[in-house]
Amino acid sequence: MSDERELVIEAAKRARAATRGLSIATREQKDAALHAMANALIQHSELIVAANSLDVQAAIDNGTDESIIDRLTLNNERVHDVAQALRSVADIDDPVGSVVREFTRPNGLNIKQVRVPMGVVAMIYEARPNVTVDAAGLAMKSGNCVLLRGSSSAYNTNIELVRIMRAALEGTAIPIDAIQLAPGTTHEAVKHLMTARGFVDVIIPRGGAGLINRVVTESTVPVIETGVGNCHVFVDESADFDMAVDIVINSKTQRVSVCNAAETVLVHSAIADEFLPKLMSAFKECDVTVHGDESLRSVVEGADVPFEIATDVDWGDEYYSLDIAAAVVDDLDAAIEHVRRWSTGHTEAIVSNDATSIHRFSTELDSAVIMVNASTRFTDGAEFGFGAEIGISTQKLHARGPMGLAELTTTTYIVTGTGQTR
Amino acid sequence: MSDERELVIEAAKRARAATRGLSIATREQKDAALHAMANALIQHSELIVAANSLDVQAAIDNGTDESIIDRLTLNNERVHDVAQALRSVADIDDPVGSVVREFTRPNGLNIKQVRVPMGVVAMIYEARPNVTVDAAGLAMKSGNCVLLRGSSSAYNTNIELVRIMRAALEGTAIPIDAIQLAPGTTHEAVKHLMTARGFVDVIIPRGGAGLINRVVTESTVPVIETGVGNCHVFVDESADFDMAVDIVINSKTQRVSVCNAAETVLVHSAIADEFLPKLMSAFKECDVTVHGDESLRSVVEGADVPFEIATDVDWGDEYYSLDIAAAVVDDLDAAIEHVRRWSTGHTEAIVSNDATSIHRFSTELDSAVIMVNASTRFTDGAEFGFGAEIGISTQKLHARGPMGLAELTTTTYIVTGTGQTR
Repeated sequence: MSDERELVIEAAKRARAATRGLSIATREQKDAALHAMANALIQHSELIVAANSLDVQAAIDNGTDESIIDRLTLNNERVHDVAQALRSVADIDDPVGSVVREFTRPNGLNIKQVRVPMGVVAMIYEARPNVTVDAAGLAMKSGNCVLLRGSSSAYNTNIELVRIMRAALEGTAIPIDAIQLAPGTTHEAVKHLMTARGFVDVIIPRGGAGLINRVVTESTVPVIETGVGNCHVFVDESADFDMAVDIVINSKTQRVSVCNAAETVLVHSAIADEFLPKLMSAFKECDVTVHGDESLRSVVEGADVPFEIATDVDWGDEYYSLDIAAAVVDDLDAAIEHVRRWSTGHTEAIVSNDATSIHRFSTELDSAVIMVNASTRFTDGAEFGFGAEIGISTQKLHARGPMGLAELTTTTYIVTGTGQTR
Repeated sequence: MSDERELVIEAAKRARAATRGLSIATREQKDAALHAMANALIQHSELIVAANSLDVQAAIDNGTDESIIDRLTLNNERVHDVAQALRSVADIDDPVGSVVREFTRPNGLNIKQVRVPMGVVAMIYEARPNVTVDAAGLAMKSGNCVLLRGSSSAYNTNIELVRIMRAALEGTAIPIDAIQLAPGTTHEAVKHLMTARGFVDVIIPRGGAGLINRVVTESTVPVIETGVGNCHVFVDESADFDMAVDIVINSKTQRVSVCNAAETVLVHSAIADEFLPKLMSAFKECDVTVHGDESLRSVVEGADVPFEIATDVDWGDEYYSLDIAAAVVDDLDAAIEHVRRWSTGHTEAIVSNDATSIHRFSTELDSAVIMVNASTRFTDGAEFGFGAEIGISTQKLHARGPMGLAELTTTTYIVTGTGQTR
């Protein structure tokens, strides 16, 4: 075993040892620790900002993109926000110990399915220091020990954040090893974490498609995949036009850099002539560029909206920008076929007043969330009322769609008898 | 892409295409198909037995173990049993479409979480032809298309079984490609199936530890791991002695070849002197061999029970035989430490009349099922009242413990609004 692998496994073992104490901690004990962590972060804000400035300077020296540098940067105000997020986690209900179901068998056995922590959770993420604190808080509240593996470009910041949070756990009921940085800064060290099967219970990658794809294909530890979202809005024959325009515009433009933004609009052929000009004039107002086939050119350019010919990349990928792919489809069947072919299984919306169309769209697609007459932007933990945002799962195992704290737990069956045998 | 990989992917694509029809099939349509399959198997029983005899002869020629040949062998009566199992699946409630939860947000959005099929499920299993039929039935009832990859030693049998089941689907509402053999008979072909990410939604291995370990480490498709069971029974200080003897004997001896049989008994030191002689005399009656440390030799051999010195293999592995590892532990803490160190996370039992001990044993271990004053043998889908036995999950993601049909489904959120935007 390489030295680096040994360090990763040793860290996981320390986390495993800490699970016993954390898994039986009460809500009050966990909340007290969360507030202690938040207080410590604010108290040592200067140290954090100083460590962060080393990372930011290195990123500038490396010619890193400005948007990435912005995500990496912490100032006193942002440290305050990050600490506040820990207090919000303290306000959420504790999922541990809640009874999922309970029933008694004819032989008198009482069977109770109870939520329990996963155990050791590893987070692999990019250059966003707020994720370091968020993940530590969410893991703790759900009773899990966490190994944090952020981008090496945030290394100094993450070391300082974790050092401060761990120090804050002294004098609380929570074992210090419940929060750890995963050892190592190399690409290989990530591999050791992803293959620490038996030592780590679950890995949650948070970041772009490249990171997520690497983790899901290389891990031998079970993974919860969070979401790439090529979301569609279908405007049906029976749609209310004003509602359809509002929903398309909101889904596309309210925030373009997120996974629940719409990337494609499909319009039923029966209403295309009447509806498209209305949609294009809204696109014009919002500076949206349309990608479609040649048949759309005249209506798009006629409204003074930029137009480009769409290729497979347009139908398949996320723009993260004020661009949208657009197509007129023959009917509902053609819309369903298009979405089934190109969707990443995140969120699809239909705007319609026809119950049959709505039912078919809801049942014949294969996505985590179907929006009926609502914006795709509502696929979100907070909007669902889950209180915390772990991510949006686009996989089918374990959790699908917005994940709350309960999705960071598993269950145990406790079967109580009076001496029953078979 | 190799030709063989291409064949596997093509089969998965045909299965994917069939999911659209199967996922919206009604319960009546699926049950009718299950009965049609059962009828066809009985009608063509002779063909199945003839194909099976080829596999059995080849196994005999290869000097295969008698117990494996027994599992491989089908006669008319066994074909009848296998067909009957399909009729039992028809009797179980359909999980598809059931509402997991439903709530309305302050903004008026109605959020409904509904059970839907996984899509394409692959089963990888050993030389048990009954699994071919069972898996096809369970997958169909849960709305999933299935790719079946049994042992190549059952190849002729599986070809005939699948041919007959597919033919039976003609004239039903279920697409024929809902049931397919995974192409190829080589080790490599299994690898192609395990890496068909994006084409196959989930892989369920059924078989011994070697098979399961290969699948969980080599798959890039999500896996539901089913269970290796190193189950423990702890006899606490406050245990009723007769109950404890009954539970240990039943857990160990009622059926030794199964994952929910007990492999280790731990006895609290405070009662060891009084309890062990009673337990040994029961072991004597049931021909159990005890593996323990030197301190146990005199009490075991004094009862005329065979004794062997235990090594780490005894503490860590399943016997599948009338052997049991035994140890006297200082107290509850020592019992918990022992189980945490050696358990495979399947089932642990405590025999106790002390509420605090029971609570600590239930919450400080990390296993799928905790039995309180009941035999470990109750960890079973049928005993839990789930109607069907997909397997016992020992992983923490998605499902843990006995799995029913619901565990072969995922969920979709259907969010219904009246034009809401953010």
